Amino acid sequence: MTAAKLEQYRERIRTELDRVVEFWLKYSHDKQYGGFFTCIAEDGKIYDELKYVWLQGRQVWMYCRLYRTMERFRRPEILDAAKLGGAFLQKFARAPTPGGTEKCAFCLTRDGRAVKVQRTIFSECFYVMAMDELARVTGDKDMQADAVKMMDQLVHWVRVDPSGLGRPQLPGDSPVNSMAVPMMLLCLVDQLIEGRSEMMEKYSEVGDWCVKQILQHVQRDGAAILENVTPDGKELPGCQGRQQNPGHALEAGWFLLQYAKQKGDAQLQKEAIEKFIEVPFHAGWDKEHGGLFYFLDADGYCPTQLEWSMKLWWPHCEALIAYLMAYSQTNEPLLLSRFSQVYDYTFSHFPDPEHGEWFGYLSQQGNVVLDFKGGPFKGFFHVPRCLYICEKLLDGLLEKQDS
Amino acid sequence: MTAAKLEQYRERIRTELDRVVEFWLKYSHDKQYGGFFTCIAEDGKIYDELKYVWLQGRQVWMYCRLYRTMERFRRPEILDAAKLGGAFLQKFARAPTPGGTEKCAFCLTRDGRAVKVQRTIFSECFYVMAMDELARVTGDKDMQADAVKMMDQLVHWVRVDPSGLGRPQLPGDSPVNSMAVPMMLLCLVDQLIEGRSEMMEKYSEVGDWCVKQILQHVQRDGAAILENVTPDGKELPGCQGRQQNPGHALEAGWFLLQYAKQKGDAQLQKEAIEKFIEVPFHAGWDKEHGGLFYFLDADGYCPTQLEWSMKLWWPHCEALIAYLMAYSQTNEPLLLSRFSQVYDYTFSHFPDPEHGEWFGYLSQQGNVVLDFKGGPFKGFFHVPRCLYICEKLLDGLLEKQDS
Repeated sequence: MTAAKLEQYRERIRTELDRVVEFWLKYSHDKQYGGFFTCIAEDGKIYDELKYVWLQGRQVWMYCRLYRTMERFRRPEILDAAKLGGAFLQKFARAPTPGGTEKCAFCLTRDGRAVKVQRTIFSECFYVMAMDELARVTGDKDMQADAVKMMDQLVHWVRVDPSGLGRPQLPGDSPVNSMAVPMMLLCLVDQLIEGRSEMMEKYSEVGDWCVKQILQHVQRDGAAILENVTPDGKELPGCQGRQQNPGHALEAGWFLLQYAKQKGDAQLQKEAIEKFIEVPFHAGWDKEHGGLFYFLDADGYCPTQLEWSMKLWWPHCEALIAYLMAYSQTNEPLLLSRFSQVYDYTFSHFPDPEHGEWFGYLSQQGNVVLDFKGGPFKGFFHVPRCLYICEKLLDGLLEKQDS
Repeated sequence: MTAAKLEQYRERIRTELDRVVEFWLKYSHDKQYGGFFTCIAEDGKIYDELKYVWLQGRQVWMYCRLYRTMERFRRPEILDAAKLGGAFLQKFARAPTPGGTEKCAFCLTRDGRAVKVQRTIFSECFYVMAMDELARVTGDKDMQADAVKMMDQLVHWVRVDPSGLGRPQLPGDSPVNSMAVPMMLLCLVDQLIEGRSEMMEKYSEVGDWCVKQILQHVQRDGAAILENVTPDGKELPGCQGRQQNPGHALEAGWFLLQYAKQKGDAQLQKEAIEKFIEVPFHAGWDKEHGGLFYFLDADGYCPTQLEWSMKLWWPHCEALIAYLMAYSQTNEPLLLSRFSQVYDYTFSHFPDPEHGEWFGYLSQQGNVVLDFKGGPFKGFFHVPRCLYICEKLLDGLLEKQDS
């Protein structure tokens, strides 16, 4: 019974991954300048030529990961596109800053001129992911060193001195532990250490630090995951302090599960499932219309983000990974039934049967509100990463059942 | 027939203005630190204590304008609150910047410490509005000089050298004429010159320049008002270039109508009505559910702003002012019927009969999605300004009919 169901999931997920890859291969490549178009309409038309650096890096990473670890994607056109994307990033992503630090831009023109630089670490994070994964495929040691150098810069900004980010120090702007930061660094540690003992040694302490920082977001006696806390793990005042982002907490959940598995840490596994997966799922699931809310306020006030009640594709992607990984680590049937619940909502609402790929932005009621397939924050990343990880997990589960 | 209808509008608008003023008098005053709370829930509860400088300035301005020009609001508690708000701003709004320029913060803690500084001109604009209007009420010449000094700084940033705003010069970030900038400056010119011949002389050229800059946004042979154009009035590429914000264009429309009336410029009046009021109204009105969309793309692509299809309170406020002012200047019945159309949607959707004030954010279908009365961008401004101006216009129209 379960095996048949798992096989059915795998079949659909595999088909969907193929369709999503084909969509981006067909529409997103900029053959003239390299890199990728990411503003892609419902039917594949490019509606804006700007190149968002997060999405450039993510697409390079995803192409390379598929190429490296899934036989059917070991195709020259995928590797070629990833190389052109990597070259575009290496050539253009770095932007001059007033402080003189080497920052990555947030957004570039089609031909690579910087349009905007954010005073955060995320463009650099996706640069590291891209370069490291591409180096794994090509064996380019200089590129790998470039990734490590940028990673060390990131760790410096986060843990030693943020002044290079260019944010002015303001008297009312008290320091915040924003969950995105240790999550991203943990994701990069995971990327850099795979199969490399010297990197495992180099980044082991950083990884542990990230986990500790993430765990500080368990608040209110374990009843809520809050996105922003003080650096010593207390609740912050106001909306910022009460903000919940269920999809983000679920993503943190599976990052922690991966780490727990590597370390054989049963306590961390338990914490990841109970606090970072179950708690935000129950807080975030819309009992009336189904799907996960984007933002919530822990005291039940209306969030101030206009999109708080919308159903976005990526929290559902993260929930699918989180529950399937939790199930594959524990064999707990309840976790598989939650996966099914998310799966049913996701696959009946987000994929576009007509043109392929997924819609990204639904109303609370589940209707498509923004119909593009790619935009400034939606590229070739959450959907294929989810399908890729879920397919791998299902392979493992079905293999176990066979044996 | 028309007179009875106009009287009916005036009655409702007057009652509504009274209720809105009472709401903010009751809930928004910070008696401990001065200034105003603006994050106010549906029922009046303060859900965040941060003080947004735009909204502090706007509330001071609105209180003083009501105090100065409407007999029934000449109440000591209104003046006292405005003075405390003005003192709070003068003491705390200015924040240190890396470049050493005097910038106003975007957001302050309850006790006035800067939390965030934007690299735009708008906090300063609302500072000027507040200080000038408060000075008109109190007769404080130093305060008026402070407003003029800040205004001159603004004009310098916009027309001579923007480097003091702190935005890095990036090679792909080409200069843009964003409609908000000349609109704001024109609004300030209007504020500063009222009844002062020396100011009229000083800012006359700036006012003309603003009008010219605004008129550059008429694009596509007059078929669209685009939010962002090149400095020489050409369409920009991509989403940024195609962006339409109907409510904003309608607001520009009545700014231009005011200016045209002052100057006796019939051609500008015609342009304001035909291009800045009728064109965005037709582009922006939702034929299916009623109400004005927030953003649209001139080529019909889906805008990338997640809130594009929502119905916000302020575009409807601006549309009410625009059509009633256009009607009062022309006596064209069509313009009054458009006012009625917007009025019917607005008054049946936004006001909260239970707790008072207006909801700000509805779904495309017209349901309340965010239920707070005040937030980071919604304060004591668009609603009372709309009701105030409409009441004055109706007074004028009814007086004309009587005589």
